[in-house]
Amino acid sequence: MITIISCTNRTQSLSRIVAEYYQSLLAAHNTKAQIIDLQGLPKDFVFSALYGNAGKNESFNVYSDQVAQGEKFVFVVPEYNGSFPGVLKAFIDGLEYPSKLADKKVALVGLSSGMQGSALALSHLTDILSYLGANLLGMRVKLPKVEENLKNGKVTNELYNQLLQEQIQKLITF
Amino acid sequence: MITIISCTNRTQSLSRIVAEYYQSLLAAHNTKAQIIDLQGLPKDFVFSALYGNAGKNESFNVYSDQVAQGEKFVFVVPEYNGSFPGVLKAFIDGLEYPSKLADKKVALVGLSSGMQGSALALSHLTDILSYLGANLLGMRVKLPKVEENLKNGKVTNELYNQLLQEQIQKLITF
Amino acid sequence: MITIISCTNRTQSLSRIVAEYYQSLLAAHNTKAQIIDLQGLPKDFVFSALYGNAGKNESFNVYSDQVAQGEKFVFVVPEYNGSFPGVLKAFIDGLEYPSKLADKKVALVGLSSGMQGSALALSHLTDILSYLGANLLGMRVKLPKVEENLKNGKVTNELYNQLLQEQIQKLITF
Amino acid sequence: MITIISCTNRTQSLSRIVAEYYQSLLAAHNTKAQIIDLQGLPKDFVFSALYGNAGKNESFNVYSDQVAQGEKFVFVVPEYNGSFPGVLKAFIDGLEYPSKLADKKVALVGLSSGMQGSALALSHLTDILSYLGANLLGMRVKLPKVEENLKNGKVTNELYNQLLQEQIQKLITF
Repeated sequence: MITIISCTNRTQSLSRIVAEYYQSLLAAHNTKAQIIDLQGLPKDFVFSALYGNAGKNESFNVYSDQVAQGEKFVFVVPEYNGSFPGVLKAFIDGLEYPSKLADKKVALVGLSSGMQGSALALSHLTDILSYLGANLLGMRVKLPKVEENLKNGKVTNELYNQLLQEQIQKLITF
Repeated sequence: MITIISCTNRTQSLSRIVAEYYQSLLAAHNTKAQIIDLQGLPKDFVFSALYGNAGKNESFNVYSDQVAQGEKFVFVVPEYNGSFPGVLKAFIDGLEYPSKLADKKVALVGLSSGMQGSALALSHLTDILSYLGANLLGMRVKLPKVEENLKNGKVTNELYNQLLQEQIQKLITF
Repeated sequence: MITIISCTNRTQSLSRIVAEYYQSLLAAHNTKAQIIDLQGLPKDFVFSALYGNAGKNESFNVYSDQVAQGEKFVFVVPEYNGSFPGVLKAFIDGLEYPSKLADKKVALVGLSSGMQGSALALSHLTDILSYLGANLLGMRVKLPKVEENLKNGKVTNELYNQLLQEQIQKLITF
Repeated sequence: MITIISCTNRTQSLSRIVAEYYQSLLAAHNTKAQIIDLQGLPKDFVFSALYGNAGKNESFNVYSDQVAQGEKFVFVVPEYNGSFPGVLKAFIDGLEYPSKLADKKVALVGLSSGMQGSALALSHLTDILSYLGANLLGMRVKLPKVEENLKNGKVTNELYNQLLQEQIQKLITF
């Protein structure tokens, strides 16, 4: 069982679409996956589930528990403003400490609207995941100009599909 | 007029204390400063003030306007989980686009509980601020073990004070 | 006088071509510029000019002195292997300490062969330059697919030229 | 067999001492390790073994072959100037392409003289190793104030030893 995190709280996000597509690719490899979509987080979680309130927000704890139980993760990460969405880090700030991501295995997929890709978003996220003790799959997949390469819920760009398949094979044996 | 941002929404944060102390140091140089404290942001702003809702949350807009009107900034940034607090990036994600931080001048102060300092938090934030076009003062001040070096609202460590004074002098003429 | 550093020791590098083009753009703004090309560094400088040998290699010192005397800098930085060329950091490791780059003003131009750009190279270099105390111009110019957008020593892509002109205007008044 | 890289070309470096100490800790776990010390690289390798000369320098190729044959790696990385030594990246720039580090497993140990640690050095190196496709062990060990915590070739700080032992256990089963 692999846990895919759609790393934005934007409604109807491209990250969610890519997360579902990734799930379908995993299914074709007989590998089950669940999706955690940050879109469903409690609206006030950055206040009601962090710091002194850590662990006290039951709706947030559902998400936190899913992370705690996961073994392998795929983070689908859009780039906004030269990094990942703030809500992703706020989500991580609300998770249990010491981190349940320690010693877990993580693969990263980056999305960007522009051609410049999501290198900085993935770099920053890698630092945080390393801090938490997660093991990072070397191969990061970056999908620039993602809008133009998605149609009816599928990635249409052949190179992108090749990279995703390659990452999936590595992740399964990681 | 300098705008100091206390970059966490934690209540009674050390960042707020350091922000006020920085303000008092600036006052001694005849330089006025206002403080933006992310603690006061609307509780649901990561949903009600971002993406499709950008600009629609009046309470958030008060903060956004303060940033828009500022010319020089000091970000007081605690390190959590190998980076800055997620709420800071979420705040930036809600600001106007194109960014009103473009061509503004920014200095960074990093806080950390441990001795290892806030190097990663400031590195990640620098990438974001550069993306938005802000000019970065080279000298970053890092205050490790900050709890032990604060008393009655003042920084007690002499070296830290020296670094803060040096940064202030550079910022005033930047 | 602006100092442009061509940040690779590769012979006949694209960085050198872009550095000369940048120099010509500055000349059109009545601004003189000199080029430091790492290609000319002594062949064994990573041994003969670093650590215990710092300051002892006369050929290296010529370069070191040029940096010391500069006031404003443009680093033209190709991306290799997910960062800038190692030789650039080795060059910086051989410069005087405390750094003569402190309080100097620096603009960054990144080159890459692929479409993904040089975001990581510029991010890493920013950390180093901040460590040395240099003030960074917010606007970083990235030139992806640089081979295809250069002809007869000139950048042919209109958007790239617009970005370079915008950066030059900011740098002159920085 | 684990390959430990002492990531500086400084003579009698602390990195080399820590590399040998790490080797002795591995031996106590019945795990063999070889050391690659960048101190032995050909003096002019940044010119004679890179770019057009890739693969042509026989003395360099000995090092390159050791990397190619390794399966698991430990990089012992000192922080200079807010990053790792330039010579390390220059060494990587001279290795075969596509990288023989792809799909290999890597652990990082950072050294610093000051108390602020080697967070940026390890962050930058992680980006490069990820670019090359290496899988990164989450747990990074940082040894600040390293001079004061080494004696007669041994790490004397108990916490540091605990962290190194923990990393070794993770690396062996990675």
